[in-house]
Amino acid sequence: MAGSVWGTLLTMTTWGESHGKGLGVVVDGCPAGLPLCEADIQKYLQRRKPGQSRFTTKRQEEDAVEILSGVFEGRTTGTPISLMVRNTDQRSHDYDAIKDLYRPGHADYTFDKKYGFRDYRGGGRSSGRETIGRVAAGAIGAKLLESLGVYVAAYTRSVGEVEIDDARFDLEERMNNGLCMPDAQAALRAQEYLESLMERGDSAGGVAECMIWGLPAGVGEPVFEKLDARLAHAAMSIGAVKGVEIGSGFRASRMVGSENNDPFIRGADGAVTKASNHAGGILGGISDGSPVVMRVSFKPTPSVSLTQKTVNCCGEEVETVVKGRHDPIVVPRAVVVLEAMAAFTAADLLLVSMTSRIDRIQDFFAG
Amino acid sequence: MAGSVWGTLLTMTTWGESHGKGLGVVVDGCPAGLPLCEADIQKYLQRRKPGQSRFTTKRQEEDAVEILSGVFEGRTTGTPISLMVRNTDQRSHDYDAIKDLYRPGHADYTFDKKYGFRDYRGGGRSSGRETIGRVAAGAIGAKLLESLGVYVAAYTRSVGEVEIDDARFDLEERMNNGLCMPDAQAALRAQEYLESLMERGDSAGGVAECMIWGLPAGVGEPVFEKLDARLAHAAMSIGAVKGVEIGSGFRASRMVGSENNDPFIRGADGAVTKASNHAGGILGGISDGSPVVMRVSFKPTPSVSLTQKTVNCCGEEVETVVKGRHDPIVVPRAVVVLEAMAAFTAADLLLVSMTSRIDRIQDFFAG
Amino acid sequence: MAGSVWGTLLTMTTWGESHGKGLGVVVDGCPAGLPLCEADIQKYLQRRKPGQSRFTTKRQEEDAVEILSGVFEGRTTGTPISLMVRNTDQRSHDYDAIKDLYRPGHADYTFDKKYGFRDYRGGGRSSGRETIGRVAAGAIGAKLLESLGVYVAAYTRSVGEVEIDDARFDLEERMNNGLCMPDAQAALRAQEYLESLMERGDSAGGVAECMIWGLPAGVGEPVFEKLDARLAHAAMSIGAVKGVEIGSGFRASRMVGSENNDPFIRGADGAVTKASNHAGGILGGISDGSPVVMRVSFKPTPSVSLTQKTVNCCGEEVETVVKGRHDPIVVPRAVVVLEAMAAFTAADLLLVSMTSRIDRIQDFFAG
Amino acid sequence: MAGSVWGTLLTMTTWGESHGKGLGVVVDGCPAGLPLCEADIQKYLQRRKPGQSRFTTKRQEEDAVEILSGVFEGRTTGTPISLMVRNTDQRSHDYDAIKDLYRPGHADYTFDKKYGFRDYRGGGRSSGRETIGRVAAGAIGAKLLESLGVYVAAYTRSVGEVEIDDARFDLEERMNNGLCMPDAQAALRAQEYLESLMERGDSAGGVAECMIWGLPAGVGEPVFEKLDARLAHAAMSIGAVKGVEIGSGFRASRMVGSENNDPFIRGADGAVTKASNHAGGILGGISDGSPVVMRVSFKPTPSVSLTQKTVNCCGEEVETVVKGRHDPIVVPRAVVVLEAMAAFTAADLLLVSMTSRIDRIQDFFAG
Repeated sequence: MAGSVWGTLLTMTTWGESHGKGLGVVVDGCPAGLPLCEADIQKYLQRRKPGQSRFTTKRQEEDAVEILSGVFEGRTTGTPISLMVRNTDQRSHDYDAIKDLYRPGHADYTFDKKYGFRDYRGGGRSSGRETIGRVAAGAIGAKLLESLGVYVAAYTRSVGEVEIDDARFDLEERMNNGLCMPDAQAALRAQEYLESLMERGDSAGGVAECMIWGLPAGVGEPVFEKLDARLAHAAMSIGAVKGVEIGSGFRASRMVGSENNDPFIRGADGAVTKASNHAGGILGGISDGSPVVMRVSFKPTPSVSLTQKTVNCCGEEVETVVKGRHDPIVVPRAVVVLEAMAAFTAADLLLVSMTSRIDRIQDFFAG
Repeated sequence: MAGSVWGTLLTMTTWGESHGKGLGVVVDGCPAGLPLCEADIQKYLQRRKPGQSRFTTKRQEEDAVEILSGVFEGRTTGTPISLMVRNTDQRSHDYDAIKDLYRPGHADYTFDKKYGFRDYRGGGRSSGRETIGRVAAGAIGAKLLESLGVYVAAYTRSVGEVEIDDARFDLEERMNNGLCMPDAQAALRAQEYLESLMERGDSAGGVAECMIWGLPAGVGEPVFEKLDARLAHAAMSIGAVKGVEIGSGFRASRMVGSENNDPFIRGADGAVTKASNHAGGILGGISDGSPVVMRVSFKPTPSVSLTQKTVNCCGEEVETVVKGRHDPIVVPRAVVVLEAMAAFTAADLLLVSMTSRIDRIQDFFAG
Repeated sequence: MAGSVWGTLLTMTTWGESHGKGLGVVVDGCPAGLPLCEADIQKYLQRRKPGQSRFTTKRQEEDAVEILSGVFEGRTTGTPISLMVRNTDQRSHDYDAIKDLYRPGHADYTFDKKYGFRDYRGGGRSSGRETIGRVAAGAIGAKLLESLGVYVAAYTRSVGEVEIDDARFDLEERMNNGLCMPDAQAALRAQEYLESLMERGDSAGGVAECMIWGLPAGVGEPVFEKLDARLAHAAMSIGAVKGVEIGSGFRASRMVGSENNDPFIRGADGAVTKASNHAGGILGGISDGSPVVMRVSFKPTPSVSLTQKTVNCCGEEVETVVKGRHDPIVVPRAVVVLEAMAAFTAADLLLVSMTSRIDRIQDFFAG
Repeated sequence: MAGSVWGTLLTMTTWGESHGKGLGVVVDGCPAGLPLCEADIQKYLQRRKPGQSRFTTKRQEEDAVEILSGVFEGRTTGTPISLMVRNTDQRSHDYDAIKDLYRPGHADYTFDKKYGFRDYRGGGRSSGRETIGRVAAGAIGAKLLESLGVYVAAYTRSVGEVEIDDARFDLEERMNNGLCMPDAQAALRAQEYLESLMERGDSAGGVAECMIWGLPAGVGEPVFEKLDARLAHAAMSIGAVKGVEIGSGFRASRMVGSENNDPFIRGADGAVTKASNHAGGILGGISDGSPVVMRVSFKPTPSVSLTQKTVNCCGEEVETVVKGRHDPIVVPRAVVVLEAMAAFTAADLLLVSMTSRIDRIQDFFAG
């Protein structure tokens, strides 16, 4: 099934595996006339590139993107934009030892059951490198949103038990520490925690948070294509994600209605706004004009250097120590993947929302 | 946009609003030959019907379903199954007072912004009655799964801070208390909590949990149509849902890898299984043969009897007290909605999974 | 599979069979604010109703449509519009004689092979009554187009060898004769031809033509969602259709380039137009502002009163005479089905075309 | 809009333009385990390559395909198969003269109206080179079908008025003449006709025919995803196609029912078959086990060397002579495009048809 296609009017079709010739994405449905160059995309890919801090895999990849189609004289033409990144540092031999067994927490077993065999090199299509296509496409989604005054940013909210303090929140700071945390103090503590884990060969989980500012009210389609439902789908489709929240999220289940409801008020400019944002910017699945807030839980990297029990392809119980180059935590590099998926999804639904009212459609075609 | 269609091979298209003539759903793509009668569907609708305990709205509706097409001589024909429930107890006049203002926590404001106006009677399409179509379709999904040995059940895991104790877990018990909790003691405490809230005109949130047993390994499509991503989409599309978790969920973000990884083992029957199930039955977005476990956070019912601040259609700040018939908590009636959505989604992806291997396809057409 | 859903942003989901409880359609994605009442839809259904001339089946059906949802205070709300027609004159007993054999030219055999059994009453889902949902949905598509200055009309171009003469073309005339021909003289000759066929128990085929006026240039999406490709799909999905042409169609295969090319010229108003329209209003799959022209070939009604050879469910060769109430030609009643499908499809792609240029999108959201 | 994606379970997403860096396709949903190498695809691309006879453009392109993903150790893995062909002989300077005017019969004008500007080099995305992705994907569709005993072949039926004689039909012969005609005598006459046209700088149209053998009964989904409707969509989406017929096609409109109906008979092996095949292998939109027969009309190549009237971007009337390298007829090279689209579409619907009966689904999961 076409599980590699995402979106309604604006779609991405990703392809590629960890140790194949390369990875890429075809973005279809991008409106014509948007300025776009490789640097626009490369800056997003840099943020997910390995080897940027001691908390990320040492695999060396340039991850240089090439625009193969859909851009002419610096602008999108409205036709499919094909983007490709060649793999260069593949080291397939690292993986021969594990080709016949099922690593705990990985998709080896389920791929074998589903497809009868698998590309065992570096996780194949279930590798974290699969996200290159998402990030490249998301860069286009973000560019499209920016041209309409909408901005998306994601960052690490917590690493294990270490959470950022909202009082110290500084979005710029996320670019200064290797953990993508918008709080320098929390980042320091998180680093200490990660180093202690790395010493004993273990790994950590964490939470990423994503914000969308400037999204106009009216985006999201009842009943099944609600903005929050689509964002949850987009986020949960990222490897290692085990939970998604919008606004007050799981905390809402323990609140009472009078506390969780956000009062509508008349804003300084006379426009309707809300006194609080427990809703996370979405009511009835439709954006309400407040910032959209999403939080996503990532499980600890399944590749740990400790000895683990497992089973091999013959059904025999064996022990394994996962080798290869792995991040002790996926969140810092996954943050840009979440941002990319959120941007792309919001851009798609923003386009879709243009057709909700006949009077505005009449104006469009009259004008 | 066609936001009211859900699924790939097995689809549901729902329609209807709180105070219109009725509500319904068209289920398309159901395989031919499945025994189906109205009672199969009615028993699911009974579980979401209002008026079943003092914790649900007093609106009186028969919610009697009619099968309009797609069934011949007691079996599905492979053609669309159209199901309808007529509205009978509508009391539109209850809602006249609120037609010009935006109830906090409701979709009044966002519908107005999106569509220019709205059917203000009882929330229109954003009403909880919208779920009738989902539940009716889900009953068919569940019937289809059962014919293949797959079973789905959802229940209330917590009401506010009151959570079930897994040591006392008794699935049958969920049918005995008005709160759909599989733990009689927890249900008692939850009832006390709800009664104290109702006295002061407030409402509660809670968490529902859904299990799928017997789903074979191999269901779910990388990259964007992963089983967990689709389930998250399905769950988040239900009104009042603010969070979704699979397996260890948000807890996974605070665990270490060696703890969260589930060791593969050789089961009693020689088949591969897992020693634990932090993954919630899904690895790499594909079912692994263990039970699928999903938890969903519901916000407190936004309709509270307390005076709330809000804004009217003219942008003037006003106060409002929501009248009408409302549940002090949505979870007990939403449980069957979650079960329905999970069953339908799993059934769809189960059908899709039939085409993953050429050898099995060759056998199918040779046989 | 969900074969009963049509469209991208504007979708219809049809349901129902010849001798079930009724037939209907759910139209999703219709913009809010469009005036709509049952009479708007009924007038289209009247045109496909049986019993209107001696060339149509004598089955008596009111085919009265009911709007079940999606319209509030006379305007569409943006939510799904559910439409239903109850079957009243079913006479199932007429069909018992044929339930065990495969009528030539009908779908009895293929339904049995696909589904294992079938609803044999009146063709079930493969009956011409299946088109009720299409026509009802098409009425909404046409209403939407009209609000944007776009008009669609279909008519009978030929009955057997009898074709209209373009020099006598009079669109109004199509409503005056039972054959929907816009040429009174041709209609007379066609009637004589049909009467001679009816006398000997045979049936005729014919060609319907559909025009779309006022469609702005720019509608249709390269590569696979071209306007002509979508129209061809829509037309070929109608029962009994065996061919579709756009503009010069099959004649183009025998023309030379200098003859078939339409010169662009400067129109009276200074706008670009074309000196001829062999392209049928579509270049590169995108509307060019000229009228869209489509012709569709219908096979003769397969139900003839002559004795035919066939095979029964046991594989035995038998003879059969088809009884029941059948049209000697399907074209006059199919004309409105074609018109409906063309209108709906054009309306969908017109909405989609709103997102092709970033400058116009910026204006939309700025305005 | 995502107009570059085709298919339901088996999808292709094509990209690329005439004078960009290259062209390609991502095939998603191909079952795992199918043997596949670049030569399997290259042999299809060779058939559409330019420069193979004096009736095709002299543009020199290797059109060498590279498999970038989805194949491991010679077999498909079930993940997306990305295929790319680099452009090498681009000669963009040829096109500078036409960048400001609208060539008759081309999509220049409609692209400009839709997107605000266009990649004018060689037609950009509306070039015949766009079909490289289709052919590459179709090669995979054909390989999949062959593994299930289904075979597809297309050929030139007519060039202008010169049509093949069915009595001389020899499928092998299509590979022997530059026109892809399965009748050597007709090919000779067609060549003479084309040469006379080329002398005076004009071009020809023609008809291609496509057959599918071995497709089991039961493929195609009522109502909107009928096999014939999907094939018509697929065929009409190919550039220059103006008409599509199934079986007796437009001829059916002039036949009577007793003549057009195909009697069912008991075949030599005791299985049900038909005495004739006016239906073209499809009844009620579902394959009936007979060969599928489709005919497609191509308009004459719009690029002619004669002086033509047209309009430029400023709306001024001008004259133009189209230069560049163009085929005097597109049919011989388009034949493999039609074959590719038919194979891919049939393969997709064949997979979809696996889920039509619950008993066969139960067997599948039990086995």
